[in-house]
Amino acid sequence: MAMVCLLDFEAYAEKYLPKIAWDFFAAGADECSTRDENILAYKRIRFRPRMLRDVSMLDTRTKILGTEISFPVGIAPTGFHQLACPDGEKSTARAAKAMGTCYIASTYSTCSLEEIAAAAPGGFRWFQLYIHRNRAVSRQLVQQAEALGFQGLVLTADLPYTGKRRNDVRNGFQLPPHMKLKNLEGAFEGNDRSEYGLPPNSLDPSVTWDDIYWLRSLTHLPIIIKGILTKEDAELAVRHGVQGIIVSNHGGRQLDGAPATVSEKMDHSSGTKSGNRGYCQCSR
Amino acid sequence: MAMVCLLDFEAYAEKYLPKIAWDFFAAGADECSTRDENILAYKRIRFRPRMLRDVSMLDTRTKILGTEISFPVGIAPTGFHQLACPDGEKSTARAAKAMGTCYIASTYSTCSLEEIAAAAPGGFRWFQLYIHRNRAVSRQLVQQAEALGFQGLVLTADLPYTGKRRNDVRNGFQLPPHMKLKNLEGAFEGNDRSEYGLPPNSLDPSVTWDDIYWLRSLTHLPIIIKGILTKEDAELAVRHGVQGIIVSNHGGRQLDGAPATVSEKMDHSSGTKSGNRGYCQCSR
Amino acid sequence: MAMVCLLDFEAYAEKYLPKIAWDFFAAGADECSTRDENILAYKRIRFRPRMLRDVSMLDTRTKILGTEISFPVGIAPTGFHQLACPDGEKSTARAAKAMGTCYIASTYSTCSLEEIAAAAPGGFRWFQLYIHRNRAVSRQLVQQAEALGFQGLVLTADLPYTGKRRNDVRNGFQLPPHMKLKNLEGAFEGNDRSEYGLPPNSLDPSVTWDDIYWLRSLTHLPIIIKGILTKEDAELAVRHGVQGIIVSNHGGRQLDGAPATVSEKMDHSSGTKSGNRGYCQCSR
Amino acid sequence: MAMVCLLDFEAYAEKYLPKIAWDFFAAGADECSTRDENILAYKRIRFRPRMLRDVSMLDTRTKILGTEISFPVGIAPTGFHQLACPDGEKSTARAAKAMGTCYIASTYSTCSLEEIAAAAPGGFRWFQLYIHRNRAVSRQLVQQAEALGFQGLVLTADLPYTGKRRNDVRNGFQLPPHMKLKNLEGAFEGNDRSEYGLPPNSLDPSVTWDDIYWLRSLTHLPIIIKGILTKEDAELAVRHGVQGIIVSNHGGRQLDGAPATVSEKMDHSSGTKSGNRGYCQCSR
Repeated sequence: MAMVCLLDFEAYAEKYLPKIAWDFFAAGADECSTRDENILAYKRIRFRPRMLRDVSMLDTRTKILGTEISFPVGIAPTGFHQLACPDGEKSTARAAKAMGTCYIASTYSTCSLEEIAAAAPGGFRWFQLYIHRNRAVSRQLVQQAEALGFQGLVLTADLPYTGKRRNDVRNGFQLPPHMKLKNLEGAFEGNDRSEYGLPPNSLDPSVTWDDIYWLRSLTHLPIIIKGILTKEDAELAVRHGVQGIIVSNHGGRQLDGAPATVSEKMDHSSGTKSGNRGYCQCSR
Repeated sequence: MAMVCLLDFEAYAEKYLPKIAWDFFAAGADECSTRDENILAYKRIRFRPRMLRDVSMLDTRTKILGTEISFPVGIAPTGFHQLACPDGEKSTARAAKAMGTCYIASTYSTCSLEEIAAAAPGGFRWFQLYIHRNRAVSRQLVQQAEALGFQGLVLTADLPYTGKRRNDVRNGFQLPPHMKLKNLEGAFEGNDRSEYGLPPNSLDPSVTWDDIYWLRSLTHLPIIIKGILTKEDAELAVRHGVQGIIVSNHGGRQLDGAPATVSEKMDHSSGTKSGNRGYCQCSR
Repeated sequence: MAMVCLLDFEAYAEKYLPKIAWDFFAAGADECSTRDENILAYKRIRFRPRMLRDVSMLDTRTKILGTEISFPVGIAPTGFHQLACPDGEKSTARAAKAMGTCYIASTYSTCSLEEIAAAAPGGFRWFQLYIHRNRAVSRQLVQQAEALGFQGLVLTADLPYTGKRRNDVRNGFQLPPHMKLKNLEGAFEGNDRSEYGLPPNSLDPSVTWDDIYWLRSLTHLPIIIKGILTKEDAELAVRHGVQGIIVSNHGGRQLDGAPATVSEKMDHSSGTKSGNRGYCQCSR
Repeated sequence: MAMVCLLDFEAYAEKYLPKIAWDFFAAGADECSTRDENILAYKRIRFRPRMLRDVSMLDTRTKILGTEISFPVGIAPTGFHQLACPDGEKSTARAAKAMGTCYIASTYSTCSLEEIAAAAPGGFRWFQLYIHRNRAVSRQLVQQAEALGFQGLVLTADLPYTGKRRNDVRNGFQLPPHMKLKNLEGAFEGNDRSEYGLPPNSLDPSVTWDDIYWLRSLTHLPIIIKGILTKEDAELAVRHGVQGIIVSNHGGRQLDGAPATVSEKMDHSSGTKSGNRGYCQCSR
């Protein structure tokens, strides 16, 4: 089976993964309108190609918050990589390093931050954070990530509650017993791990812009907010002193009915004014 | 079979109901353009989600004509519930009370208004009225509903004649002999019950805005008009002193070619000016 | 098989007609874009229904060039009815009379004009004319139609050449030997009847607006031009003194790429100014 | 199998060609959005047909760069005709001459320019050029084409690199061993012919508008640039003194996401000002 394009990898995964794992990776929230629109919006883009330019020297390198990457695509934070591959996030870290781009490791990794850092020493990595009701858990993770050489802190802002992914509910999605959310082992009491490997309602839905100052007090890392979809929130991000935003609808896995990431008509001027501030667009 | 979303209930119903009952519930008029557009119009709605708000306390309560409901969705009037469940409208009344919202009982219920009222004492209920050529029938129903504690009178305005639902014609739809339109037992002479359990042409197609005054003379209940689709009619509703309107195309079962309820571009200003006047949007 | 709507008749015809006959009736030109758009354009129409009007008395009668019809739909000219029914156009004439509307009999009928007239005495009928290179044929038909009591002359303007209906070419469409174009028997020499029952190229592609004056010299019947799709041509029709136009793209059987009849944005003011002039819209 | 329209030829080819050849001819780049949009854009075109014109004399002749062709359609340059027919481009040349139109012979023909010229003496032909890194190859081809009587030089501007046609990659597309790119035999050293019959990266991606002057120095033939999709490039073409442009997205085989050729909203005024300059639109 030749792997010629992303669709080939997708078909391969659907064929060889257990249904419960495939459904988890492929999920969108509710009717999946936003997930599907994410793809369709790309197809509607039309280029205006110019001809007879000297394109013998191509250079796709760019910088993201001051660090060079070899092409303008990074790896968004996603959890549970061991569902797809026994090596889990260690493989992802190695691949990102090999390709010379940024890997954002998820709070919900099935490898620990130490394992990820050790798998690809010197790789360019950010750490993605969910803030839990138990703030001590979150503080410890941020500080551990900084100590391990992660170079940015990505706060996911669009998951005060988890979106309803119908197939996960139908499948009764659970992590297999031999997989753990390694970064959160021992973080919670009791044995109920029914919500994507965590106790129900462990995430803190009361997080507001003021918590950016709390995060700032924990770390010297640049702070990037992931999940911004409006001009108003981009302006608030600037006003709260963050170093970047990631435009994202969480791959259509959170609010169904949110606009496609790539067609989002947000006014970007505020988010990109300052030279050292980043602006990314995320397919997740 | 996990019941995760409305579509799951729909699939369950299609699988287990007799075809004639399913076809009746699923019907749209003629080509079903309006019925289908009702769904599609929802999918075209796009949100502009804002992030990092404290959403730890969620309150979906609202008021409808002064009465609190636990969330802004009510149960539209639909007939023939015994086709789906032996307990019929009694079950619906109990469910509405349990969920803390409004149930609009249909003239064409297969349980009587007494049975409905007794099934869920203290529940918040309105009564939906079709006006028959035999006005004595309608007057009696209105007065009975008020006496039984129904708190609103909903006049359906979009059914001077019944829409042509093709599968019902093909199936020769008839109520099974053991079901009755309990509210209309003894109301009509002769034995022909071929039009949805009633004699043909029993509805009065000459009803006009002036009949609102007649209804007002019968009852102290607030009057709500269901089936309004234009700004002009909304203004007429205000001028005739009704307490509310329900924007509805009758679930696409009446005039095929009517706009989707949720995309209706009616100017709402007139209909919502007065504090005590209601405005609802109806999927039926 | 219940016949509830036009689609049911269509399905019935497709099932029971010989393929060659069905393909002929269902044909559109080339890619059938216009034929299909004719249907789709209807589905895009949205009504703005008004409520609470007295609709107990419904009257669908209207007048067409001064003659009353019972509802505003007539029967467009189509040929070869014996392909569908042994009685051919005689049945159509009887049905039109029974329904109280206008039947436009085609030049390409498989019954003669006498037979059609005799089948439904006193029926309201127009005669549709194609102008042949042999003008004597056309003159005779017009005069015969007038003598037989036809009340209007419909000139088809959109068929200087016959559209390419692919399935007819693939099927090698021919009239079965026992069917004849009765109005044209003996009108042409030789035996080649390969173009829809006629010698190839028998139609006159040099017809222009000036030929309206020729037609006027032949008959006192009102002249209606069928196939107008632009404001400019509607104005020319008025200027040439015709009594009516029929907006039509020939059911999508002629120029593929013509607009849908019902969505045609032609400015109708010119064509409908004069009280005695007609304006029809044609699905054929 | 009746051959009634282009789609019939397409279906015939798909049925009888080896899959690898069909896939090559049918290919679009990447997701094939542009290839598919090329067809869809045609279907969206609507005519405004005028009636009652004398169309007995039809004349489709036109001129292209001063030479008369019998109808306004030419044959775009495409390679590898022997994949479809043993006679290869010789057949195409004969057909073009028989139809009285222009044939643009591709650099990547499986017949030599001599064979093509000899197959249809006196036919109206242009030569399509790709510029190779080895400029001597290109110079020789241009001069040979002029010597053989080709009347125009078409420079393809939209292929600095070859588009990714997924099925060709999956099929490991190679020319069968008995076919050769006859115009390029002996032009390259080594044996690697893996990129559509050529050594990898043999095309020169550094070609710019200045190379027009180099081409001009090689030949007296009119120069036409194929692949222009923007007003800006059309203006540059005029400024560099070329005699014509061909609006083309290479049949959707190069940049996926380019607009449909027929819907391209380029401002044509510049490209068509001069009487002797040509403007064509290309489906390839």
